Amino acid sequence: MKFDRIIYNGIVITVNPDFEIIEDGLVCIKDGVIQSVEVRNKDISQYRAVDFVDANGGIVMPGLINAHVHLPMSLFRGLADDLPLGQWLNDYIFPAEQKHISPETVQIGTLLSCVEMILSGTTACCDGYFYEDDVAQAVFETGLRAVTAQGVIDYPAPGVPEPVRNVETAVEFVKKWKNRSPLITPSIFCHSLYTCSADTLKKAKQAADSLDVRFQIHVAETKGEADQAREAHSMSPVKYLDSLGIINDNTLISHAVWVDDEDIEVLANRNARIAHCPESNMKLASGVAPVPNMIQPDVIQKGITVGLGTDGCASNNNLDLFEEMDSAAKLHKVFKSDPTVMDAKTVVKMATIEGAKAIGIGDLTGSLEPGKQADIIIIDINKPHLTPMYHPESHLVYAVHGSDVSDVFVSGKALMRNYKPVCLDVDDIMEQAVAVGLAVQRNHQ
Amino acid sequence: MKFDRIIYNGIVITVNPDFEIIEDGLVCIKDGVIQSVEVRNKDISQYRAVDFVDANGGIVMPGLINAHVHLPMSLFRGLADDLPLGQWLNDYIFPAEQKHISPETVQIGTLLSCVEMILSGTTACCDGYFYEDDVAQAVFETGLRAVTAQGVIDYPAPGVPEPVRNVETAVEFVKKWKNRSPLITPSIFCHSLYTCSADTLKKAKQAADSLDVRFQIHVAETKGEADQAREAHSMSPVKYLDSLGIINDNTLISHAVWVDDEDIEVLANRNARIAHCPESNMKLASGVAPVPNMIQPDVIQKGITVGLGTDGCASNNNLDLFEEMDSAAKLHKVFKSDPTVMDAKTVVKMATIEGAKAIGIGDLTGSLEPGKQADIIIIDINKPHLTPMYHPESHLVYAVHGSDVSDVFVSGKALMRNYKPVCLDVDDIMEQAVAVGLAVQRNHQ
Repeated sequence: MKFDRIIYNGIVITVNPDFEIIEDGLVCIKDGVIQSVEVRNKDISQYRAVDFVDANGGIVMPGLINAHVHLPMSLFRGLADDLPLGQWLNDYIFPAEQKHISPETVQIGTLLSCVEMILSGTTACCDGYFYEDDVAQAVFETGLRAVTAQGVIDYPAPGVPEPVRNVETAVEFVKKWKNRSPLITPSIFCHSLYTCSADTLKKAKQAADSLDVRFQIHVAETKGEADQAREAHSMSPVKYLDSLGIINDNTLISHAVWVDDEDIEVLANRNARIAHCPESNMKLASGVAPVPNMIQPDVIQKGITVGLGTDGCASNNNLDLFEEMDSAAKLHKVFKSDPTVMDAKTVVKMATIEGAKAIGIGDLTGSLEPGKQADIIIIDINKPHLTPMYHPESHLVYAVHGSDVSDVFVSGKALMRNYKPVCLDVDDIMEQAVAVGLAVQRNHQ
Repeated sequence: MKFDRIIYNGIVITVNPDFEIIEDGLVCIKDGVIQSVEVRNKDISQYRAVDFVDANGGIVMPGLINAHVHLPMSLFRGLADDLPLGQWLNDYIFPAEQKHISPETVQIGTLLSCVEMILSGTTACCDGYFYEDDVAQAVFETGLRAVTAQGVIDYPAPGVPEPVRNVETAVEFVKKWKNRSPLITPSIFCHSLYTCSADTLKKAKQAADSLDVRFQIHVAETKGEADQAREAHSMSPVKYLDSLGIINDNTLISHAVWVDDEDIEVLANRNARIAHCPESNMKLASGVAPVPNMIQPDVIQKGITVGLGTDGCASNNNLDLFEEMDSAAKLHKVFKSDPTVMDAKTVVKMATIEGAKAIGIGDLTGSLEPGKQADIIIIDINKPHLTPMYHPESHLVYAVHGSDVSDVFVSGKALMRNYKPVCLDVDDIMEQAVAVGLAVQRNHQ
């Protein structure tokens, strides 16, 4: 067969079920799909392809999956830090969103985030925000893959001034984007238990199930939220959500910090999907999600899936999933007083195949296996901070930065070659973001 | 005055006592010394200098100070991770050191670390290892600034086969390097309370004091060490060390994880210097040093100084102090359940002026002030992940990576210009490190 593209001369980390690593591997691509992942056993000139990509001895691996993000919020990166959550939200983030979020700025912020993701090796993400039609359009233009969810909240929101229309707006969004592009998977995102009524939650969940799209929600992010749920419903946030019939294998729960062993059992029994966001939880001092307990073999076997997310840039303050992997591994080790928890392989899987499964695109992406979409990144390891290399998976978690990614492909299409984004006008996108930033600065500082 | 070099068109973060930030600043350098740091108030053509460095609107700041590192250990980067401390040390690190550490490999590992530090914006570090003469020589060749300490341990060590000569060897090293180069400050480094006898500790401390050089030691890194001290001496590690008369303003204590409020009072009363290494402590699951308690105003006022260190690459696994700042800020927020602790300015000071004071070179470097050595870095902020920028100090902690550093100067001499290290043959250094790595791999995997 003559392939469209062959990536060769790289250490291929497949992230297949055996976590196979091929020292001198080949990834052969046709029609955007991985046809084979194999050991190179003859001279490269004996293979047939339109394009040959020399990985220069670097690491070839599935693109990273960001399981929870708010793309347009890159516009508020570093607007306010080191503040109590309430003051941060009420004095800075909410007013800034109210004044500056429009279809146009949402597109600018999304494009900025997409460029950042491409540059740092993320090929798919799961977004939740408002004006999601504009988010989806902007992501679509960049060639990245995304699950994009229209936000639902029982307050006037950007683009949804009348809360009574919140679920309806989300349904319209899903219908518009369903089957529109293989790269964009629409979804519905209820903000939280404390901003959506039981009625809204149930309506939104029913709509998501009937449209067969992911239902997303922030759950048990802070102690305050957990206390409030116990006060109002005499139940933990997870149990309350479960009492409403909201949790099943089509539900993506972000954060899950304030969950106990009983909550974890509920989540596992319902096959819930979790987006773990360690850096955001650290920076906002929300707490440490008990992820090591969630990924115990007996819990995993019941059916829980845990991916890794950065959360929005207003609370992180970047979208670098390599940094997130490093923090995830180290945070849980010190918090559990056990250096063996969250080993490198576990964390790499969380940022790739498990994340893909969590956001509902695990059949398409997240590993390098024949039949999967060719969502692939190359990491340039010819650098002092990556020398020497004893275990590639260790480097991915503990030493590689997003800036070491040299090449990015989604569905076989090159989005970055040799450190240069293809097609996108990065300078123009940054210029537009700077202009929004200046307007925000005038109003909120 | 005609200057040797003027750095202009940058946002100058002085890290002077007022943490002054100059939006469009100039740093004027002559004979390696900062002559003035000022607002640009006329066209640049009206200033006189041999060389003008255009910072392109980036951040101009003091080079970062790594307060605790073992430079040659970059050779063991990622050799073994995710293991219990004892197994990691006894099965991997100690055997690898025993077999592969020689004057030659120490120089290679040191050069590799120096290149990594230059590339990521660190201009000075505080090292402790064996064959320190070779470490010092290698650092000296790179043009970086360092405090280099010969290790002292009551066991046979690389280059010191007879422990009875350990302090003597350190004294010889100090005498050789004292006043040899303004960039190299020698020092003595006792490994720990559990590897050095009371007699060795006192002898080494007396030698350091009489030679007027820093005395360094790992203290209270792990719970095991703290328990052992209590069992053997009925005292905490800090109190035991104090009972030996070891702690004063010339003592640099690395880690200080297992210290309580009484220990902190001892440290403050003795004006101790602390090197905080959050990422190493996280990865090895050692614990969380109570740094927020150490930097309370009343404690600071008594005289404690806290800098930031990466520790060696075998336990981190890189030397990127920007990542270390990010981790330090986030770790303490989540551990104290308080997003206001370890705010960005505090962390930036810890990685610059406080680190310089901690390792004994605060009069030379650590801030951009007239009379100080011109140890300066430029950060390129024209990147998607640094756009927009509301507060430069927030970006330094929460968004910048080492790879965003474009230019590095030490004592006014350029060590990196426009992302390219000057003088050093980076490829050759990496090639030598890879060769050592292959030999290590053959023996220890």
